[in-house]
Amino acid sequence: MKIGLLGLGTIGSGIYEHLKRRDDIEVVRILELLRHPGLEHLETSDYNEILNDPDIDTVVELIGGLEPAHTFTVQALKAGKNVVSANKLMISHHMEELLTLAKENGVQYRYDASVGGSIPFLYNLMRYRGADDLQSLSGIVNGTTNLILDVMQREGRGFDDVLAEAQKLGYAERNPAADVDGIDAECKLCIASAVAFQKYVKPEDVDTEGIRHIAAGDIIHFKQMNRVCRLLVNAAKNPDGSIRAYVEPTLVPADAMEAAVHMNNNTISVVGEYCGLHTFQGQGAGKDPTAFAVELGLRDIMDGVTARLNPIPEGYAAVDNRQARHAYYLRTSAHPGVPVEKLGDCEGSAAYLTEPMSVSEMHALAKDLRDKDPRLFFAGIRD
Amino acid sequence: MKIGLLGLGTIGSGIYEHLKRRDDIEVVRILELLRHPGLEHLETSDYNEILNDPDIDTVVELIGGLEPAHTFTVQALKAGKNVVSANKLMISHHMEELLTLAKENGVQYRYDASVGGSIPFLYNLMRYRGADDLQSLSGIVNGTTNLILDVMQREGRGFDDVLAEAQKLGYAERNPAADVDGIDAECKLCIASAVAFQKYVKPEDVDTEGIRHIAAGDIIHFKQMNRVCRLLVNAAKNPDGSIRAYVEPTLVPADAMEAAVHMNNNTISVVGEYCGLHTFQGQGAGKDPTAFAVELGLRDIMDGVTARLNPIPEGYAAVDNRQARHAYYLRTSAHPGVPVEKLGDCEGSAAYLTEPMSVSEMHALAKDLRDKDPRLFFAGIRD
Repeated sequence: MKIGLLGLGTIGSGIYEHLKRRDDIEVVRILELLRHPGLEHLETSDYNEILNDPDIDTVVELIGGLEPAHTFTVQALKAGKNVVSANKLMISHHMEELLTLAKENGVQYRYDASVGGSIPFLYNLMRYRGADDLQSLSGIVNGTTNLILDVMQREGRGFDDVLAEAQKLGYAERNPAADVDGIDAECKLCIASAVAFQKYVKPEDVDTEGIRHIAAGDIIHFKQMNRVCRLLVNAAKNPDGSIRAYVEPTLVPADAMEAAVHMNNNTISVVGEYCGLHTFQGQGAGKDPTAFAVELGLRDIMDGVTARLNPIPEGYAAVDNRQARHAYYLRTSAHPGVPVEKLGDCEGSAAYLTEPMSVSEMHALAKDLRDKDPRLFFAGIRD
Repeated sequence: MKIGLLGLGTIGSGIYEHLKRRDDIEVVRILELLRHPGLEHLETSDYNEILNDPDIDTVVELIGGLEPAHTFTVQALKAGKNVVSANKLMISHHMEELLTLAKENGVQYRYDASVGGSIPFLYNLMRYRGADDLQSLSGIVNGTTNLILDVMQREGRGFDDVLAEAQKLGYAERNPAADVDGIDAECKLCIASAVAFQKYVKPEDVDTEGIRHIAAGDIIHFKQMNRVCRLLVNAAKNPDGSIRAYVEPTLVPADAMEAAVHMNNNTISVVGEYCGLHTFQGQGAGKDPTAFAVELGLRDIMDGVTARLNPIPEGYAAVDNRQARHAYYLRTSAHPGVPVEKLGDCEGSAAYLTEPMSVSEMHALAKDLRDKDPRLFFAGIRD
């Protein structure tokens, strides 16, 4: 197998090192704007040198972001090259186009590494197809926010303080928006749902709330409730054939499995009619784990991935979060406008417990109330 | 694919029902001593009717126990039939013979369902081969004992009381020895180690301690230590190329992942140089989960399992548990004979904390002390 590698950042250099150990996979060209000592003979800034090289059968796309990753991937698939990628943002926005193009051109598009890094979640979901009917999935798929929540809960520190430390240690990006606003988790939820339920999910249909506004005072209330806050993704089949899909901070019981997921680890679960609840845990990001996952994707292609392991969803899911209902923790200085029980004061606001209400109702309410209280925070309460 | 099914007990009837949904796999003969209404045309008490039927390409062995399961499996492999089994006792004792026979006869022997039921642990370990170097594995692989420990810890009840209830509800067998003495876990550890480290492990080389002697009084001490007791299997590479392999009750911190594994669930983890710590959780037993795992094994055969997904270990591991060291909780009425700190009295005995000592030393010490105190209990302490 001869590889054209797009991007030699952290993950790219990781996969380059991993593949050097193998004699059946060779990186023959690297698309990079920078030059790296010892690799100049492989590096180019001209993508056409990869696209037009008939020896290159597979492209590993590690550029990240929507463009030019999307255009390069489309071109590679049309040129009859397999593509392996961990780019969740791009995949979640172009999944239908890319899987269809791959099928039309008789090549593979492997994106196992895009959800959960090295955790073989997507691969196993694909493997279960046909032997089970998957009902729901949920989990912690963003390591940065889990680290922040875990440290806040265990050390009683504030959000800004912990975020700044995470940035200093390299666990959070300088612009943390994609992580702390739940966008990264939302992309992963769309991809995982498409694999589990075989219907594409549009990112804009997902109700998404991040953790940007959580405060140390909130944590005090969570502890009194014997609960722990985690940023969870959730998707499930509704009885009428639509699906529910949302991302929100969630208060789980202190002895729940998710409460024992510490630092920047990930956990993701699926429920099947036959297999029951299956949970996969591990490092969701990082150089070696992600490179490991990309390498497995390349080997799957060499082994001849079956149709079962590369399902093509049919059409788009109707997303309806009005059918998902639970109580919420709500901390705001505004008047809630829905029936609540007051838990106490909290950092100049008041903390409330709502009655069970739908996910779509709560996310809409928060949007309204933020006109008066931009720092409002809420979290779903899970039994 | 045409199946000869050996045994129509709980799992056997589960797999029969699951396979009825498929048009690519058909059960054409069932070896059973009893007759089941509507299935008489498939049932036989004569194994030769399966063995000598050239239409049957695959045998699903769900008899359990060493014999006649072992003899039947050997005969099937020699007759050029694939075999799928969940029989951990038999596999752990005959793994080398069965895998070698399968290879020699150009057929597959699939045993994914033997460790962790539906949890795809063995399958993923096999898939990681060549892409990572696995260092260690550990976990909770026996649901019955986990249920007993979890209920004892949460409700403060005694062992006999909880065991009796578990037996009444069908979670424990009438003869619970294989579960509560750690034998079932030991078998699974041998199989998982062979896959992870590619060296067979003899059950008799494993230091194994069960939970038969745990008392409600012990749990009080664990709570004071802010710890939870779980029956863990452990295996890891020693620096000198030998491996450590042992089964023992283990006190984990109350916020550890294993402490959040409740009731009869299983969890099993592996550490790789690249992938880091990967954990798999789910139902380790039961009709539907096990049938699901057997069905996946059958599909793997139909898909053409690659050599990578069916590795043949080379030779036997040298097991050396002198190189694994940690402190122990020890409750006995005998004089410990090793340096200890007394924690307090406990059900007519005394509870102690030992200094770090080797696993082989502790298991040998317990054997000695049981001459004086048959009800002695000990548990490793994990950081």
